[in-house]
Amino acid sequence: MSAPPASSTPGSMPGDLLANVAFDRDGLVVAVAQQHDTGEVLMVAWMNRAAIERTLETGDVHYWSRSRMKLWRKGETSGQAQRLIELRVDCDGDTLLLLVDQTGVACHTGRRTCFFRAVRHGRLETIAEVAVDPKTLYGD
Amino acid sequence: MSAPPASSTPGSMPGDLLANVAFDRDGLVVAVAQQHDTGEVLMVAWMNRAAIERTLETGDVHYWSRSRMKLWRKGETSGQAQRLIELRVDCDGDTLLLLVDQTGVACHTGRRTCFFRAVRHGRLETIAEVAVDPKTLYGD
Repeated sequence: MSAPPASSTPGSMPGDLLANVAFDRDGLVVAVAQQHDTGEVLMVAWMNRAAIERTLETGDVHYWSRSRMKLWRKGETSGQAQRLIELRVDCDGDTLLLLVDQTGVACHTGRRTCFFRAVRHGRLETIAEVAVDPKTLYGD
Repeated sequence: MSAPPASSTPGSMPGDLLANVAFDRDGLVVAVAQQHDTGEVLMVAWMNRAAIERTLETGDVHYWSRSRMKLWRKGETSGQAQRLIELRVDCDGDTLLLLVDQTGVACHTGRRTCFFRAVRHGRLETIAEVAVDPKTLYGD
């Protein structure tokens, strides 16, 4: 009887993933969340090692909040969670691409995506409407 | 006769864009490049103010290289350029989404996208083939 491979031990990150993620001086990597079926880029946030581990363990996307200096589960307050479909790593290991299934809206403004402003006609225009009143997500 | 609005002056960044971009302590913002029609996330790199300005001026995507500490035009060596279709900004201004038209391959490994590795079956797997031999892009 042999021990299960380390890569499938609950609670651990696959060793080859860990070896290929290049955390920055703050122990973080950029994470891009993309809706798996429509291709919408929903948001960009940061992950540390614990956030990656919790995401792989639970299937619920977790990030590291640089402003609050804490781990957070996406949707823990708003209910607008992200289920992980697949985690990808870029060539130099300093960015992750998370293919997710987003419940409701990704943006705290109540819009589907955080990228709701575009340069058009020489100025910044709002190109997406608020889909859910943020008050219903976060209270007053 | 009134002066043209600052936002349309050739060579300048729209004032409302500049006011809404939150550069980090190094003067940089994360930039995600997405193929405009297929939705593929091609790569993630960094831009400074000059990179944004040159990109908007020329329509050719420019980034700031943190390793070489210089501005570079995507494809200047490899020929694998990115034409800007639209520049978007996220809710807190610290990430840009570039909708682009990518010539050939975005990754220096010769793959279409830099995100060619995924966690599958508890380990990191290569999920995209090399489309162009890097030697033909960069020489030996």
